[in-house]
Amino acid sequence: MDYPRKTAPTDLPILEAFKERWSPLAISDQPVSDDKIQTLFEAARWAPSSYNEQPWRYVYATKNDGEARERLESLLLSGNAWARNAFLLAVSFAKKTFTFNGKENRHGLHDTGAASAYLAAQCPALGLVAHQMAGFKVDEAATLLGVPADFVAGSMIAVGYPDDPKDLDPKLQEREKTPRERKPQKEFVFRGKFQ
Amino acid sequence: MDYPRKTAPTDLPILEAFKERWSPLAISDQPVSDDKIQTLFEAARWAPSSYNEQPWRYVYATKNDGEARERLESLLLSGNAWARNAFLLAVSFAKKTFTFNGKENRHGLHDTGAASAYLAAQCPALGLVAHQMAGFKVDEAATLLGVPADFVAGSMIAVGYPDDPKDLDPKLQEREKTPRERKPQKEFVFRGKFQ
Repeated sequence: MDYPRKTAPTDLPILEAFKERWSPLAISDQPVSDDKIQTLFEAARWAPSSYNEQPWRYVYATKNDGEARERLESLLLSGNAWARNAFLLAVSFAKKTFTFNGKENRHGLHDTGAASAYLAAQCPALGLVAHQMAGFKVDEAATLLGVPADFVAGSMIAVGYPDDPKDLDPKLQEREKTPRERKPQKEFVFRGKFQ
Repeated sequence: MDYPRKTAPTDLPILEAFKERWSPLAISDQPVSDDKIQTLFEAARWAPSSYNEQPWRYVYATKNDGEARERLESLLLSGNAWARNAFLLAVSFAKKTFTFNGKENRHGLHDTGAASAYLAAQCPALGLVAHQMAGFKVDEAATLLGVPADFVAGSMIAVGYPDDPKDLDPKLQEREKTPRERKPQKEFVFRGKFQ
């Protein structure tokens, strides 16, 4: 069957991958091949970063990973319980300092956001969807996943094949159907000076 | 003539747009149409963000924008003087708080990084290149460009058609030719637990 697609109603013709990327709540537990998983991280790998630091790290677990998977799921807030169903769960982390000189990298999260955005946009070409969450147990994530103190948690990411929304809680089914919206460009692009 | 392309030597087949995106130093002052400029910002517009806050803002000026352009150029550090030549210069800003409740948005820069990454990946399809810089007069940027205190500067972005590197300073010509490199996945992707 065809699961929902929410092609972005763009004002100008942008990349198909960006039009088709969206963040559903219904994500399947159907296995995703290791090849596809590696392809997603490969897209993240080639994101640009300040001084090519590549500050991003990912810890992930699939439905087949037993305890490791339970650890990831334990970081979900109750509002994001829908994400338990997704075959893959990951958390991104950003290194706070530059490796070459130990100084603060103020772009750590900025560049990790770039990498995760490429991972998400790689999904449609593989028949997958990804949904990033900012709301998870951020303070516990690093400790639980063995991440050193020099890193800060970025987002939690649910990835998998799109699923039938009929098994979602009715309220979430409604949310899944809301139209996609963005501010018009005039509210965030300014020529010359901020208005 | 054909200007340099540095197609990423990926280990797995990722989106053409991600393979072709790179950050050259030789960027032309040849005019870019308003249509193309709007298409770049349209790609940024459809990036995902926490609570769909869309925290990103862009202030830009082209070579035709007189004083506004001078303001942008005055923010460049001397090491990035090459960027003066690019037809378009922009600075991204991230809103620090959520508009719906006024609370801190820890994903402001993260999501602005996502939007700018989509802008950069949209470039190859339009025959353009983009180069983001973290090193610019960050503390002066907001004041100079009239940006309110609730925003933090992200990156400075040079955009234009690719240019012949022969007019670059010889040292930069060398840098322009270095191979593209990324860490192997095993250094940033961890299954189950951080290693």
